[in-house]
Amino acid sequence: MSREQKFWGWGEPGAGPELSGHVAGLLGDWLGVSGAIVSKPVALADVRLRAPVVAGALRAALERAVGAEWVRDDREIRVLRAAGKSYRDLLALRSGACEDAPDVVVAPSDHDQVEAVLGACAEAGAAVVAFGGGTSVVGGLAPDRGGRETAVSLDLGRLDGLIELDQRSRLARVRAGTRLPELDHALAAHGLRLGHMPQSYEWATVGGCAATRSAGQASTGFGRFEELVAGLRCATPVGELATLAGPASAAGPDMRALVLGSEGTLGAITELVLRVRPVATHQRYEAWLLRSFEAGCEALRALAQADVAPDVARLSDEHDTRATFALAGEAAFIRRAGAAALRVLRYRPGCLLVTGWEGHAGDVARRRAPAARLLRSGGAMALGRGPGEGWHAARFTGPHLRDALLDRGVLVETLETATSWSGLARVHGAVRDALTQALRATPPVIGCHVSHLYPDGASLYFTVLARQDPDDPRAQWSAAKRAAGDAIAAAGATITHHHAVGRDHVAWLQAEHGALGVELLRAVKQHCDPTGIMSPGKLLPP
Amino acid sequence: MSREQKFWGWGEPGAGPELSGHVAGLLGDWLGVSGAIVSKPVALADVRLRAPVVAGALRAALERAVGAEWVRDDREIRVLRAAGKSYRDLLALRSGACEDAPDVVVAPSDHDQVEAVLGACAEAGAAVVAFGGGTSVVGGLAPDRGGRETAVSLDLGRLDGLIELDQRSRLARVRAGTRLPELDHALAAHGLRLGHMPQSYEWATVGGCAATRSAGQASTGFGRFEELVAGLRCATPVGELATLAGPASAAGPDMRALVLGSEGTLGAITELVLRVRPVATHQRYEAWLLRSFEAGCEALRALAQADVAPDVARLSDEHDTRATFALAGEAAFIRRAGAAALRVLRYRPGCLLVTGWEGHAGDVARRRAPAARLLRSGGAMALGRGPGEGWHAARFTGPHLRDALLDRGVLVETLETATSWSGLARVHGAVRDALTQALRATPPVIGCHVSHLYPDGASLYFTVLARQDPDDPRAQWSAAKRAAGDAIAAAGATITHHHAVGRDHVAWLQAEHGALGVELLRAVKQHCDPTGIMSPGKLLPP
Repeated sequence: MSREQKFWGWGEPGAGPELSGHVAGLLGDWLGVSGAIVSKPVALADVRLRAPVVAGALRAALERAVGAEWVRDDREIRVLRAAGKSYRDLLALRSGACEDAPDVVVAPSDHDQVEAVLGACAEAGAAVVAFGGGTSVVGGLAPDRGGRETAVSLDLGRLDGLIELDQRSRLARVRAGTRLPELDHALAAHGLRLGHMPQSYEWATVGGCAATRSAGQASTGFGRFEELVAGLRCATPVGELATLAGPASAAGPDMRALVLGSEGTLGAITELVLRVRPVATHQRYEAWLLRSFEAGCEALRALAQADVAPDVARLSDEHDTRATFALAGEAAFIRRAGAAALRVLRYRPGCLLVTGWEGHAGDVARRRAPAARLLRSGGAMALGRGPGEGWHAARFTGPHLRDALLDRGVLVETLETATSWSGLARVHGAVRDALTQALRATPPVIGCHVSHLYPDGASLYFTVLARQDPDDPRAQWSAAKRAAGDAIAAAGATITHHHAVGRDHVAWLQAEHGALGVELLRAVKQHCDPTGIMSPGKLLPP
Repeated sequence: MSREQKFWGWGEPGAGPELSGHVAGLLGDWLGVSGAIVSKPVALADVRLRAPVVAGALRAALERAVGAEWVRDDREIRVLRAAGKSYRDLLALRSGACEDAPDVVVAPSDHDQVEAVLGACAEAGAAVVAFGGGTSVVGGLAPDRGGRETAVSLDLGRLDGLIELDQRSRLARVRAGTRLPELDHALAAHGLRLGHMPQSYEWATVGGCAATRSAGQASTGFGRFEELVAGLRCATPVGELATLAGPASAAGPDMRALVLGSEGTLGAITELVLRVRPVATHQRYEAWLLRSFEAGCEALRALAQADVAPDVARLSDEHDTRATFALAGEAAFIRRAGAAALRVLRYRPGCLLVTGWEGHAGDVARRRAPAARLLRSGGAMALGRGPGEGWHAARFTGPHLRDALLDRGVLVETLETATSWSGLARVHGAVRDALTQALRATPPVIGCHVSHLYPDGASLYFTVLARQDPDDPRAQWSAAKRAAGDAIAAAGATITHHHAVGRDHVAWLQAEHGALGVELLRAVKQHCDPTGIMSPGKLLPP
């Protein structure tokens, strides 16, 4: 419970960059908003809370489990644990709507304390929502009570730190509440790092990444979070679920996979054995311009299928590219692109690709060379390092800027999916069309980029901007989100590549796993959590 | 039901190489056997079978499901479906012990027919054992009835062939009974292949590889079978379990993982969407000599952790190396190693490493260069292509030779595990010691090789030769296997890297998954297979 974000937005107060006048001006051109601040979040004192409901026996049991000082129900902590960071979460918190806040926040310090807390909650029939970094953008932290009186926020922040390092095997045993930068910092002392860098890097915990099957910006090269998990330990209401940590096994189904992506519905992950890598002594970020999104996708497919994909690869579609160029400022962009700038102009409308390699010097050069050859033969024009380094420097700023956009009455949200290379263009078109149609009353700007490459396909990440409907901004986005989700499911793509299911994607889970698949998840949950206290309303359809 | 293996051994009659006089002679030196043939398998007519028990209603339902001609209970088919190919399986079949043979063999031709067969068996309370390639070496095909009257062998051989190919995404939808060479043959027409090459390659089916989490000889480079599965379809007694095929997802737990490794206990896999790759136009197999097993492991660790591991990497320990050199014939080996031969002699005792790369010309050279540099700097001496190509040419002959060894009264079996790089030497020593001690009455020759590399660890594959105890050869091996398994579990390594659990590893499953993990597998099985007909006695402890 040390570092805390603003309850109504991203990061610590004052941490992010301000919105420039240039960008504020663009908002007018694009969305028809004035660029002036039209709304501000309420003060903490004005947030609407209900009085906490915690039966005396439950409180006593929780205090026995973790110590009285780690059982809190003050206004600040309840509001801070009330939601994640989706657009809808922020709309609610900025307006002071926090009636559903958890009744009490409990912070155990180790696995046994977590088991004791779960036991107490099961006994009392209190709902439990595990809280790691607090960065869910899919309603994964909503303190749904599932008909129960009390919601307990299980704060895992005290389960932090490196437990054990096997340098030879590059395996780190880590407590689940450890934040990504703190783990990288601890590992750096040994010349190692995890290198998992989602946009939520500054806040996300390793346990949260495991529970939600996270992907980071370099996961094309370093692997999705689930590929970094050699073993895990999870506390459930019926006891410990632990897997043998090892490089590979054929001893029946991989039980790690049941916990990875379980999103707190089975229990709380308490420890992970993670595959780590050496710190990067060199990195090379650069940008390229492709003639079209289609040509760009083909170039990326060639990289992935030749097994020479960069660690980071992000291809913007034409709309995303135009917005990126405009936001960067024409002049600034041309300056960064340097000598290539004039050629850029002949290429328009084109698609921007950012590539990145990280490692030691020889390794970066060795891996980049065949990729650069393939990109050039796929029609990519090199824009040099300037714009690539610009992207890298700003790679965690998106969520910070969102708060400034909300101040200005802008709808801003993202969604993502993944599909095969063959399906990519179709899914891209279908989602764009669905969003455009759903938001036709406030014509949106929709950008999309390919963010992660696989030999058989890629992910698509959409960013949507529109003028907020001041009467019902929540319903405005809900309709758009529903339309996009339906389009994704109809196209046979996954409802989420790395944002997880939470509450917002539950409606599409059966399209993904089939009726029997959902029943099996339910059977597993029933066994681990017979009283149904763990994260009601998340992941599984009712 | 086209190609069939000898019921008592490996492959079609006469398919394998004969045992040379040189090798027969070595057996005398090593094991104290004469080298003369002391036992021959019984003729099919002399195999001991019980009369099949198939109730009229069940037979009628099966015939309705698949057509009468695909419901067989003749002697030949029952014996052919009675067992896999473990040493203990072969001991039993060679001696004519086949009392447990399935009562009837049913061969559906598509997913719906499989569901109909499972429905009929559930109705009748008949046990079902799915049969793919018939190559299990862990008792996975034992027709245990679990207290039921009738055992049905579900022969998936008619579910064969490529259904659909997405060339752009390199995804092939394949029926589960397709054998690996037949799939590679079908894909070759499109310039593609699966490239999954376990030693059972000639017979194994894709469904069997999925159900057992297979690894092939090139899986260090191409990935374990489970990594090649983008999606799957499984018929269970309660209906279809199907997953969305896609490159990646965060939509809850990965449900593929529940089916991969389920070994027929939930249902039968009927279709797979597999990630395929271009045919290799070039390959480079070669051998190296390392000063010691420890030095060899360190060199392999360096390759895996630098992400430059070859597609195939097999490092023999000193014992395995000595046996390999002796079996190849000193003279033949020196001839193959060519100019390096004299230097070899100065290196002894050393450890043999075979490396292999497959791909297109530029790709092989590009990937080999940094690996070769690392190997040399790790003290590896190049022996050139001769011995590497020799290994490659003979890579599927091991199981064939086993039959000739059994004729000569030799105990011959393999077992395998995997662990972290830090644990490798300890596990290697513990398993050797356990086997040596358990077989001390007939001092064994035990070779071990590292067969698959991962950044965090590797697999260990043991081959055991000893003089058979003529009185009770089954008990002789069972004691050794138990000792080895206990040593593996005590060392915290997995009981199986790629042979699966079957019946032979059930005792160690809980050490792997913990009590709650095993309960969850049972809960999933209970849901898919409420009457418990699917593969009784396999995978799950009673």
